[in-house]
Amino acid sequence: MHFFFYPFISETLIQFEEDESMHLKVLRANEGDEILVINGKGDVAKAIIQSIAKRFFTAQIILIERHIRRNTGFHLAVAPLKQMDRIEWMLEKVCELGIEQISFIETKRTERDKLNFERLNKIVHAACKQSKNFWFPEMPAVIERFDTFLNAHEAHTNLIAYCGGEFSGIEQKLRADSSTLILIGPEGDFTDEEFNLATQHGFKGISLGNTRLRTETAAIYATAAFKFVNAY
Amino acid sequence: MHFFFYPFISETLIQFEEDESMHLKVLRANEGDEILVINGKGDVAKAIIQSIAKRFFTAQIILIERHIRRNTGFHLAVAPLKQMDRIEWMLEKVCELGIEQISFIETKRTERDKLNFERLNKIVHAACKQSKNFWFPEMPAVIERFDTFLNAHEAHTNLIAYCGGEFSGIEQKLRADSSTLILIGPEGDFTDEEFNLATQHGFKGISLGNTRLRTETAAIYATAAFKFVNAY
Repeated sequence: MHFFFYPFISETLIQFEEDESMHLKVLRANEGDEILVINGKGDVAKAIIQSIAKRFFTAQIILIERHIRRNTGFHLAVAPLKQMDRIEWMLEKVCELGIEQISFIETKRTERDKLNFERLNKIVHAACKQSKNFWFPEMPAVIERFDTFLNAHEAHTNLIAYCGGEFSGIEQKLRADSSTLILIGPEGDFTDEEFNLATQHGFKGISLGNTRLRTETAAIYATAAFKFVNAY
Repeated sequence: MHFFFYPFISETLIQFEEDESMHLKVLRANEGDEILVINGKGDVAKAIIQSIAKRFFTAQIILIERHIRRNTGFHLAVAPLKQMDRIEWMLEKVCELGIEQISFIETKRTERDKLNFERLNKIVHAACKQSKNFWFPEMPAVIERFDTFLNAHEAHTNLIAYCGGEFSGIEQKLRADSSTLILIGPEGDFTDEEFNLATQHGFKGISLGNTRLRTETAAIYATAAFKFVNAY
């Protein structure tokens, strides 16, 4: 079962953009076919393809199903990796597992200062469609400075994964039904100064276990742990 | 901190094979340098490089530290994916998270009947070294038929992830301190017959949650859940 994306689900006609029209064409969709359309904001619409004019498809919505957002959100803030394929994989996996917000943070040891957010958004959309996550996560199209980020964001449970100390494991600190923000550092980890700054903002240090996880694995593990604790 | 692999850690001289010699060369190791050597069976040895003859390095062990294996093992049995890069990623991630055994199973909807186990073993070794998992998982170099596999393997907790029914979530069924075997099907899932066969062997059906996970994501999530429950 495929889902097609259209940002404005309402009673009016859908006029698919180029990407989704191409997608429909590849799947050999025809006039009169029934399709499912999502807007990334919880709506799933049943629609009938009306016309295929040149390369663009239009469809008429006949039913809208509204999925309510889960009430405890997970926000991951992660230092972007040097290797783009690892960022993309991480993004796909955390979207499949379920996540409400993804932020990229610039730390002292972050090895990348630019990201192609258009491409990353496509990965987010594809992963959410594939995994039936009808609420797409928010992902600001900017790499935020660590201090600025800390000033602007908090959740009920605020955690920082850090190797430079003896901390409780994540399984001791995660709680069900509590909106959670977890900070994951770059390869080489946060600096002591960054960790201290985070603790001043109320973040608690956590360990992700006995093994040394790559940044993207740490991010996926934290997301999996939140899913597990909340039994989503 | 890098680890080098040598299968026979004892009091005798280490004579590295080509791969690890190349690795040492790339890292510009010299005679007299101290290195750490692992055998994938819990031993971590401190050794001194003795000589570099042609392209091969030798080293003398001066100290052996033996890590005891964790007492509850995790065994993942998964249908190999069509896309090789997804298999390789999955393997890297489950090794980082920690796993005792990986089996590949041939099910009705499995889309691949051959695997390059030499290459997969290299990925396992690299991921274990990188993440400091001193016990490499067992990985039989064969894709096992599903029925043969079920006859040959069991753990204390035996679970099968299956979408064709209403099951408790994995978080209800996983227990700490219980060796666990989880079966993950191919894209398109197990067939009803396969699921029934597994239940006849004592496997319990589980759900991995509300979203539709790709095979490799399901495998990573199951491994992450086991790690989480056991607080490794």
